[in-house]
Amino acid sequence: MKRFSISLPNDLLSSLDKKLDGSNYPSRSEFIRDLLRKNLVENEWEQGDVELMGIFSIMYSHHEFEFIKKLTSLEHRSKVKIICTTHIHLDNHNCLESIILKGKSGLIKEFCDEIASMKGVKFSSLAKTGLIDL
Amino acid sequence: MKRFSISLPNDLLSSLDKKLDGSNYPSRSEFIRDLLRKNLVENEWEQGDVELMGIFSIMYSHHEFEFIKKLTSLEHRSKVKIICTTHIHLDNHNCLESIILKGKSGLIKEFCDEIASMKGVKFSSLAKTGLIDL
Amino acid sequence: MKRFSISLPNDLLSSLDKKLDGSNYPSRSEFIRDLLRKNLVENEWEQGDVELMGIFSIMYSHHEFEFIKKLTSLEHRSKVKIICTTHIHLDNHNCLESIILKGKSGLIKEFCDEIASMKGVKFSSLAKTGLIDL
Amino acid sequence: MKRFSISLPNDLLSSLDKKLDGSNYPSRSEFIRDLLRKNLVENEWEQGDVELMGIFSIMYSHHEFEFIKKLTSLEHRSKVKIICTTHIHLDNHNCLESIILKGKSGLIKEFCDEIASMKGVKFSSLAKTGLIDL
Repeated sequence: MKRFSISLPNDLLSSLDKKLDGSNYPSRSEFIRDLLRKNLVENEWEQGDVELMGIFSIMYSHHEFEFIKKLTSLEHRSKVKIICTTHIHLDNHNCLESIILKGKSGLIKEFCDEIASMKGVKFSSLAKTGLIDL
Repeated sequence: MKRFSISLPNDLLSSLDKKLDGSNYPSRSEFIRDLLRKNLVENEWEQGDVELMGIFSIMYSHHEFEFIKKLTSLEHRSKVKIICTTHIHLDNHNCLESIILKGKSGLIKEFCDEIASMKGVKFSSLAKTGLIDL
Repeated sequence: MKRFSISLPNDLLSSLDKKLDGSNYPSRSEFIRDLLRKNLVENEWEQGDVELMGIFSIMYSHHEFEFIKKLTSLEHRSKVKIICTTHIHLDNHNCLESIILKGKSGLIKEFCDEIASMKGVKFSSLAKTGLIDL
Repeated sequence: MKRFSISLPNDLLSSLDKKLDGSNYPSRSEFIRDLLRKNLVENEWEQGDVELMGIFSIMYSHHEFEFIKKLTSLEHRSKVKIICTTHIHLDNHNCLESIILKGKSGLIKEFCDEIASMKGVKFSSLAKTGLIDL
């Protein structure tokens, strides 16, 4: 940990403190650390060639056999590493799947875009997780 | 399935077709369905009292014993249903956890905000998944 | 201005400094101030009843006489204050208009949503500007 | 205008119609046109080399003489075309400025990032407006 000081206008500081009062943040440092990490991670994802982790969530109809076949085939020949998959049977028609991925950010986005566009996939969302050393 | 017709200006239609050519979408219908679902789901999440599903991903340091104790306690007394949790040991210091949640959207957001603000949590992201019947 | 100190993990600090090196930010303080203002302003807009300013930009076809009549009527009976409007003739068909608004955030959003949904409006975007005292 | 038909699952269609009932949209076509334009414009902005228009809004303290000098100099040597600027004196300390820009999307973003990072600028927001022929 390194310590340094910053300066804020009075009004900005009191707005910040009011917000932290109503939240669970234990300190200004913790809140600012979270803001900085989030901002820096967005930069990394834009660069495309940094090794990152993502959690890709999809909801799909399990009646779409074609999709399930394609998904499995895509997963096996993928250039991103699929660490694990969690599967939930939502109801008689739908499944929810959360896929944890590791790889270059550009390849992760490509992989997820390909799946998102397939017939049968109703929702998809990629959680862009950052560098593990921040 | 119901069928109806829409009209687009020529330029908008040719831009759309150009985009679909470069993608994996099998049809205009599939692309428009995805756009509509995404837009409608955002509305549901804003309302706060609709039963929805979310996938909450966090990265945290496992040296923060206090956090792990608090997380476990929070999970057990939570008003949202925690369906399952997937845990990954990233390295000597960090863990990645993907938590699948069901409940009213307002309560899910509250639950995730509380965890996100805790000391030890480095990243967090909530994937807002939609209604299962769309 | 008030000064206080925060602490960051070494890796987060060096990532921050690397980013600032490649940017025009004169100091860490200035970058963190911008991040904080942006975050706090989003909160204000969500509350709905805070007095704020917005810049609403629209692009529309001036062949849609009905729209222009409706827009003028809407502007005159609006509950938000319209400070001024800048108008640009883009080409033979299209106009760009930037409308500077002041009022409660909920009312500004309502006003902009109503215009955005009208036939003839091709694009719209609301820049959510913050409190003037931050 | 060109007409074609799309198909939606019953539940998705009724959700869409419920939303349109509570809005000012005159038809499904108009709503879908707006969604498509927004989505296609985001793509154009990501490409970087397409000629587009943007409205850049900033709030700044007019006590920062250095900033005003830099802004003027930057505007005069800019590679993007500045079509016009609207200026508002907010109070004794602050100004609001809305700058309408035309140019390649990458250059517009660069120009706006440079201004956003300057000392004295409290808020900034770039409204990304699309192709004029959609």
